[in-house]
Amino acid sequence: MATPDRYVIPVQVGRPSLANNTADAERFKQALCQALGQDRCAASQVRLTLTVLKDLPQTLRLADYHVKVILFRDREVWTVAGIRPFTHARPLTGAAMDIGTTRVVLQLIDLETGQPMGQELGFDNPQGSVAPDVLARIHHAGSGSGLTELQSLIIEAVNHHIESLCTAHNLSPDDVYLVAGAGNTTMTHLFLGIDPFEIIREPYIPCVNILDALAARDLGLRIHEAGQVFLFPNIGSYFGGDLLAGILFAGLDQKEDPCILVDVGTNAEIVIGNRDWLVACAGAAGPALEGGVSKMGMTAGPGVIDRVRIDPETRRFDLHTIDDSAPIGICGSGMIDLAAQLFLSGMIDIRGKFSVKTCQGRLRDIDGIPTLTLVDKADSGTGEDILFSQVDLNSLTSSKAAMYTILEVIVRQTAGIEFQDLSTFYVAGTFGSFINPVSAISIGMLPDIALGTFEVLGNSSLKGAALMLSNMDAYDRVLSIREGITYIELNVNQAFMNMFSGAKFYPHTDVSRFPSVVVPKQ
Amino acid sequence: MATPDRYVIPVQVGRPSLANNTADAERFKQALCQALGQDRCAASQVRLTLTVLKDLPQTLRLADYHVKVILFRDREVWTVAGIRPFTHARPLTGAAMDIGTTRVVLQLIDLETGQPMGQELGFDNPQGSVAPDVLARIHHAGSGSGLTELQSLIIEAVNHHIESLCTAHNLSPDDVYLVAGAGNTTMTHLFLGIDPFEIIREPYIPCVNILDALAARDLGLRIHEAGQVFLFPNIGSYFGGDLLAGILFAGLDQKEDPCILVDVGTNAEIVIGNRDWLVACAGAAGPALEGGVSKMGMTAGPGVIDRVRIDPETRRFDLHTIDDSAPIGICGSGMIDLAAQLFLSGMIDIRGKFSVKTCQGRLRDIDGIPTLTLVDKADSGTGEDILFSQVDLNSLTSSKAAMYTILEVIVRQTAGIEFQDLSTFYVAGTFGSFINPVSAISIGMLPDIALGTFEVLGNSSLKGAALMLSNMDAYDRVLSIREGITYIELNVNQAFMNMFSGAKFYPHTDVSRFPSVVVPKQ
Repeated sequence: MATPDRYVIPVQVGRPSLANNTADAERFKQALCQALGQDRCAASQVRLTLTVLKDLPQTLRLADYHVKVILFRDREVWTVAGIRPFTHARPLTGAAMDIGTTRVVLQLIDLETGQPMGQELGFDNPQGSVAPDVLARIHHAGSGSGLTELQSLIIEAVNHHIESLCTAHNLSPDDVYLVAGAGNTTMTHLFLGIDPFEIIREPYIPCVNILDALAARDLGLRIHEAGQVFLFPNIGSYFGGDLLAGILFAGLDQKEDPCILVDVGTNAEIVIGNRDWLVACAGAAGPALEGGVSKMGMTAGPGVIDRVRIDPETRRFDLHTIDDSAPIGICGSGMIDLAAQLFLSGMIDIRGKFSVKTCQGRLRDIDGIPTLTLVDKADSGTGEDILFSQVDLNSLTSSKAAMYTILEVIVRQTAGIEFQDLSTFYVAGTFGSFINPVSAISIGMLPDIALGTFEVLGNSSLKGAALMLSNMDAYDRVLSIREGITYIELNVNQAFMNMFSGAKFYPHTDVSRFPSVVVPKQ
Repeated sequence: MATPDRYVIPVQVGRPSLANNTADAERFKQALCQALGQDRCAASQVRLTLTVLKDLPQTLRLADYHVKVILFRDREVWTVAGIRPFTHARPLTGAAMDIGTTRVVLQLIDLETGQPMGQELGFDNPQGSVAPDVLARIHHAGSGSGLTELQSLIIEAVNHHIESLCTAHNLSPDDVYLVAGAGNTTMTHLFLGIDPFEIIREPYIPCVNILDALAARDLGLRIHEAGQVFLFPNIGSYFGGDLLAGILFAGLDQKEDPCILVDVGTNAEIVIGNRDWLVACAGAAGPALEGGVSKMGMTAGPGVIDRVRIDPETRRFDLHTIDDSAPIGICGSGMIDLAAQLFLSGMIDIRGKFSVKTCQGRLRDIDGIPTLTLVDKADSGTGEDILFSQVDLNSLTSSKAAMYTILEVIVRQTAGIEFQDLSTFYVAGTFGSFINPVSAISIGMLPDIALGTFEVLGNSSLKGAALMLSNMDAYDRVLSIREGITYIELNVNQAFMNMFSGAKFYPHTDVSRFPSVVVPKQ
């Protein structure tokens, strides 16, 4: 049965009598507060929506006054999202949701046990068909009925996929009482149908940061009719609820020793700290990061090269593709592997340039640009050569340098500690999940710290949302993380650019920082 | 401009800047709390609905961050019902509402000044066309789509009449931000679409007593899209928000000396007390009160006899009709006048029986029942005689005796004070407004206290609702009245029946209680 940590509470409501003819709602609230603990909840803090009120008398009597209550708290208010007879046989579930700009991922949660139910279900954010990225969507929202269109697209897609998930578990959307979602600030605004117009205009102001729980029906979400929706708050225009969810899931706010969380999504978002302090930084930081660290390569899928090994003696390429299909391209983590292996086998130099001598037959000039053939068309799944040009490499070099520079600014300059002081280095985000830390260290993208320090979180935004549904303390933690966090804007000044220039070398202009990397003779 | 007592607050919101790029909603809440007083309101207590949020960025910028905020508080939560530029030229209004079983009355309130705007607008509760009284409506609500039908009827009628009121003031329903309504427990349930089934079934349990403010749109009320609706709480199944509104308006909870409030509506509801204690009693009290005190006579209207004078010497009748039209019948207050005059002129005896000797030519037998001709068909507006039979008189006698007995139980037995200790005797309810206290005392319906003690409140339910909209303290007062009041059920036992029997005499079996009444020689 549910523990007091869960948002499902068994409640034995007092029977009415001539001696106690208090209204059903008031007797119910009293009993609920008693079950929750009087110190935690007073009857005046409990809100019953009209929908719940209308069913209350009959539900109580049918259940012989013994019910399970599904509820959610935001700040001082406990909102009841459903009341079911104690003997109700169907699962009481919630849906956790990562509202990514590109991908949306859903996961059903058993609200009584707090456990995930079955697999995650991911799908492309349908807003992408109208406007590919955050900027385009903000512009689209400002034109005609663009905002309504974008909101409908995401809401309808979520409805559709919640239904699919339910069907897969022999459930109905009526069995879903709570939805917790985390997204970046723009995705959160669009989900609510709020114009994100000011987010990209100086001084970059979101409409809202902290959101109250909302009635699902007010958003058009088709779950239980009294169901509630909670979206993670934002910290600012460029620091969204998805990262807060990640901090929550990683538990940074509860660690004794400093940890770092790097979420490599559309931006590189970084949080460092422990239970006493937290510093965050989002990497939308001017020209140095143009292209970001995550725009590298293609999306993972069958035939995509995700792991690369080059024999340093023979310089033979050993490429691994997803599903072992014939190669059709390379994804970001594959590129990091590739760059590391090229560097370690001497095929690119410390400046990140292809070495004509060592690349030999693989290198040719296309429109004056040195270009490496990864896969010959005879072996490729596309019928064309799969290429990797100096331009691609330069872009990767910039990205890895930017990542390292930001880490250096945050960890050493801002937090004033050394990389070695980090007790855990959490890597979040789908892309981050596949990065091989050894490769990332080899090219100087991640700092050269003990491999055991790295911990891959996967979709920490989704997992944070799931935690929100399964633990009553999570809400307070999120608000307190939000309150306590210091958000710094990257100051892309001359000092930054100097550090950035140093980081553009392989692994770094100061090789002593990377003692584990054996720099090949040039 | 609005004072801090009103639900309209001028707010100067901080401008965003790169140095303060807090979200609009958070800056707005901060500024609102500052305007309200930080001790009274913390930002975490302010709720912005989605509707308000969606308009917020544009409203703030168009208004150059200087706005008027319309809000409402229930318990710890302040809900924003609208944000308008400070220069907004249209009135910011609310609608007060008395949801009577028979009549509904609306009144527009200027939320900035707290003053009523123009006349009240009354109309028949359209639920009456489906089911005439409370009992019938509860039964109707339980059959098929009866509940939905009853709710739609009242909501649509209110929508229609709010629109009429607005039109009469060159306003639109969009200028109405708040609605406060008071009704008995059943009317409140039906207004919300909640089945009142259990109210009339032992142990007589309302679904809900204390209501949160609700979004107008959730009820289908067509006012400002973010508008809020507040319904007065009930104390129990037979003690509704209408009476709480009356207590609020009369200010019983603030008086130093004990006062009494008698609301003669569908039931006789009575509250006695002062700022230290309040005792209430509703008169749905068994067979003695069958018929109640308000079912007497017809509804006031043109041609209805509302005042009666009988010359004690000549026994000539002087009847006043509404609009001085030809008489068509008699209303309740007219009947009390009539009975008083009949008694004082010796035409009925102390037992309440027509005296054959003194009634002479006016009295005849119809089906064995002595019947008085009030108006000869030659003078009547109906072409028929207007009659008043011994049965009618007996019913009036029972009613007046019941009223006096209840007052005696409440004032002397329960509160333990004498009638003379009452500093004010408030008479509320439309019917009560027209009662002539001298007549009511003469027949022993009201106690024989100084005439200056009586104060007619009129529609105190409506006026209490208006007060709720014009004074921020009213909400807390209502909850505190509700908390502090002792509700007693009338115990219709042998002692009560003995008192009742004594009160069936004119003016009373113990005439010493009515020193001002000159009992004519029998």
